[in-house]
Amino acid sequence: MSSKIPVVEKILSANDRLALENRARFDAAGVFAINVMASPGAGKTSLIEQTIRALQGKLRIGMINGDIATSFDADRAAAAGAAAVQINTGGDCHLDAVMLQSALGQLDLSSLDLVIIENVGNLICPAEFKLGAHKNVLVASIPEGDDKPYKYPGMYRGVHAVVINKIDLLPYVPFRMDFFKEGIEALNPGVVQFELSCRTGEGLQAWFNWLVSEARKAALR
Amino acid sequence: MSSKIPVVEKILSANDRLALENRARFDAAGVFAINVMASPGAGKTSLIEQTIRALQGKLRIGMINGDIATSFDADRAAAAGAAAVQINTGGDCHLDAVMLQSALGQLDLSSLDLVIIENVGNLICPAEFKLGAHKNVLVASIPEGDDKPYKYPGMYRGVHAVVINKIDLLPYVPFRMDFFKEGIEALNPGVVQFELSCRTGEGLQAWFNWLVSEARKAALR
Repeated sequence: MSSKIPVVEKILSANDRLALENRARFDAAGVFAINVMASPGAGKTSLIEQTIRALQGKLRIGMINGDIATSFDADRAAAAGAAAVQINTGGDCHLDAVMLQSALGQLDLSSLDLVIIENVGNLICPAEFKLGAHKNVLVASIPEGDDKPYKYPGMYRGVHAVVINKIDLLPYVPFRMDFFKEGIEALNPGVVQFELSCRTGEGLQAWFNWLVSEARKAALR
Repeated sequence: MSSKIPVVEKILSANDRLALENRARFDAAGVFAINVMASPGAGKTSLIEQTIRALQGKLRIGMINGDIATSFDADRAAAAGAAAVQINTGGDCHLDAVMLQSALGQLDLSSLDLVIIENVGNLICPAEFKLGAHKNVLVASIPEGDDKPYKYPGMYRGVHAVVINKIDLLPYVPFRMDFFKEGIEALNPGVVQFELSCRTGEGLQAWFNWLVSEARKAALR
């Protein structure tokens, strides 16, 4: 029996449609956008602070911060020299494309090269909501333990880069780097990885270089 | 105008009703139940392992572990000597009373004194779902940073005890204990607190004592 069943084009969710609109806005402005995700305390804000400071004069950076409460993180980004917008999700455990869209109204994209979106601290829910960023970046940290790729596969599977932060704590906690990386590799073969410490500065340069290079590509789009 | 509007009794959600049923099951068996929550990598499983080992011969312990994927944590609890049940939430970011109810069918409560429920690693969503445990316990950890009570108020507000883990890392990370504790106190005045390190064993005894004392109270209920 030949199939006569009509095939309906994949229908995008409302969120995914808005994410595409956000992406188009970034592209039209030649802006490179990243969505930074992590569990609470992995060091997203520290990484962003260091990035804003180090790239001053190289990239014009805007920062959008999602949190359940407080504007601590946006304050830190603004103090470091970025145009910063705070989204308080009012309890929601992740950002979505609608929240990002309204935050984008507060940023002059034409005056920026890079937009860093700091998602809500959560290793689960943010993975399910596209925002429209070009790259999803996961910040992992040594004291969280080496089993996290195995336990949070959805997050590790969906990202374009993994930043392994707090490597200065390796001497003080049990952490099998091989086991950790095998987990990442199984879920997301060949994903870009950075090992660094926001505290000591070790390894940060490779991360900065990657951002600059990706932002140049975006500007030529 | 006097009010003639009928007042409807507070209607419990389906989850809350099931949580009450779970609680009644614990109470009927004289079992003390705790719901352990934390962000990924704060040390829930290490704390539970240490607890099971230390209380062997004092309390008969059952362990219910909630994870998105893997049975790593339940395996560790079983290896430490507890009756262990694994719940894989299949992506859900928290346990709920229905999942707990079905897990309870796998445990012989009459042969237990203490049930430890390890929730999914997440500082947001688990706070919103009652399970029926007697006490909600939050495991915080030093490398997560001292701003977490301010950024995750819902979780800090709803717990009966806060375990501050990884105090052995205090010399290696910036952490203002005063600022952290002020945040806790503002949200949850007088909440029971323990400062300890699962790695060195420092401070664990006070936690064990609390569990034993609460389990005795439950047995007399």
